[in-house]
Amino acid sequence: MKNELSIEEYFNGVKSNDRSILSRAITLIESSKKAHQILAEELIQRCLPHSGNSIRIGITGVPGVGKSTFIESFGKHITMQGRKLAVLAIDPSSQKSGGSILGDKTRMEELSSNPNAFIRPTASSGSLGGVARSTRETIILFETAGYDTIIVETVGVGQSETTVHSMVDCFLLLLLAGAGDELQGIKRGIMEMADIITINKADGENIKPAQRAAAQVKNAIHLFPPADNGWITQVETCSALENIGLDTIWEAIKSFENSTKLNDAFKNNRQNQAVYWMHQTIKEQLENRFYQNPIMKEKVANIEKALLNNQLSSYQAAKNLLNE
Amino acid sequence: MKNELSIEEYFNGVKSNDRSILSRAITLIESSKKAHQILAEELIQRCLPHSGNSIRIGITGVPGVGKSTFIESFGKHITMQGRKLAVLAIDPSSQKSGGSILGDKTRMEELSSNPNAFIRPTASSGSLGGVARSTRETIILFETAGYDTIIVETVGVGQSETTVHSMVDCFLLLLLAGAGDELQGIKRGIMEMADIITINKADGENIKPAQRAAAQVKNAIHLFPPADNGWITQVETCSALENIGLDTIWEAIKSFENSTKLNDAFKNNRQNQAVYWMHQTIKEQLENRFYQNPIMKEKVANIEKALLNNQLSSYQAAKNLLNE
Repeated sequence: MKNELSIEEYFNGVKSNDRSILSRAITLIESSKKAHQILAEELIQRCLPHSGNSIRIGITGVPGVGKSTFIESFGKHITMQGRKLAVLAIDPSSQKSGGSILGDKTRMEELSSNPNAFIRPTASSGSLGGVARSTRETIILFETAGYDTIIVETVGVGQSETTVHSMVDCFLLLLLAGAGDELQGIKRGIMEMADIITINKADGENIKPAQRAAAQVKNAIHLFPPADNGWITQVETCSALENIGLDTIWEAIKSFENSTKLNDAFKNNRQNQAVYWMHQTIKEQLENRFYQNPIMKEKVANIEKALLNNQLSSYQAAKNLLNE
Repeated sequence: MKNELSIEEYFNGVKSNDRSILSRAITLIESSKKAHQILAEELIQRCLPHSGNSIRIGITGVPGVGKSTFIESFGKHITMQGRKLAVLAIDPSSQKSGGSILGDKTRMEELSSNPNAFIRPTASSGSLGGVARSTRETIILFETAGYDTIIVETVGVGQSETTVHSMVDCFLLLLLAGAGDELQGIKRGIMEMADIITINKADGENIKPAQRAAAQVKNAIHLFPPADNGWITQVETCSALENIGLDTIWEAIKSFENSTKLNDAFKNNRQNQAVYWMHQTIKEQLENRFYQNPIMKEKVANIEKALLNNQLSSYQAAKNLLNE
């Protein structure tokens, strides 16, 4: 990192929304270098009292559903209403595809040059736990910098949705009206996580199919058991390309925020998430310590073989490894 | 335990389906006494090569859906076709209600006295992990004793469904046609776990509503993403009281078994379950060791408070505890 900044410079830079320093602060948080981590931890400690004052929105959907275009149009819509928007895009596939995400994000050209928006792609290398930590801490930086609307974007195909779901207030799922199976490619369980579902690309000849898809999804949602927070999943249609329906989605998000703040679900959810991530981190660390040494890795492989040959039970296998 | 049996007596008794010894062997497995656990482990080791040859069925549904009556009628139906049925009923609420489960199970009077059926209620005290272990090992005993059809019954309201789902081959969900919300009381996510769903009490005036409910559920299922095993959830109606539709359900189970054996999903699922439970056991043990000492408990409570007051981040909180 060029010309290391002091903790004071980092904090003041983030607090005054200096875009260059904010950017460097996020890089600091994502760094795996020991010295950076110590500095990052101090920075987060400083920022914490200034964080929390935003709506955190998770957005997911399979590749091709138009997430980038949606965020571009939606971002324009809400910044015009005076909101300050920060976007963090997590792309677990970028490790393999070698940075396709950056090419992808440059498509958000207008939003990138919008003074009330800040867009940050993240390559999300490393463990899911590592991504979870840096994502949660980046949100803290965004909030300290005064962004009142945070979007965390993921591709709706992996494990990352559950992770993101447990660090946002409101979860938005983008779908397409398809031939027959509207949910093709979406992982099981994601639909039940969504607070708001929108069928995108509802324009031109696609308007009717999108409306039909929305009706079908609405029917399915009706059969789901109600969520603990009392909110009933909203199903909408929109066209990010033609700027249709974005106001309805923003109204739905605000209505979600109001209703969950009224019954304390909003606050409770955030508190539960904080405690959840503490315990998750402990679990991950305990498992890493146990599994990571090379001798143990070999032993696990051998005992899995014995297990699959019915030579011992799962519990005996576990006991053998724990006794090492 | 009266007149301790030797390992030889246990094994031969189980192998020859001596009902009294089988019953005592399960008690041995459920026991938390050290000496019993050592004996139980040896017994499981002996039984393992004789296990595996059955279809393991999980059955769930909220209280009042008629699970006991269903299992009674269904058990009669399949034992008449030459199947040997063992039923393990897990009731996580029985700790609170003080053994209501036993009262409940005596309702399966006919099945209890059927020589081709074996019914075992379990009070499921202790941790979820403990119940998981004893349930999986009881299945091994059942199979060694020659039971080719195993039913594990749970109440569809708690955490136990996920647990049971990951130790059976086929998961059956019982629903009722209700006024409006067919899934009232069912936990989110359970519907997506089900391989077969049946609307029970489809008799008399309830036939039409049950058929309507089945159609609605079928529609909802159609919108779910397909399961990895290629099976599409079957939706049926039945009346356990009047013995209607039980044959259809048995056919659906057999069809599930055939189709998943054909594409190896059956075998793969069992192998994944064995590995899963090994790692689950390791995780639980690691967490127990970490959290169980009283000083740590107090520290966790204190640090959770600091966390909720925004004094430190989830990751700092975790790190502080891990450094202890």
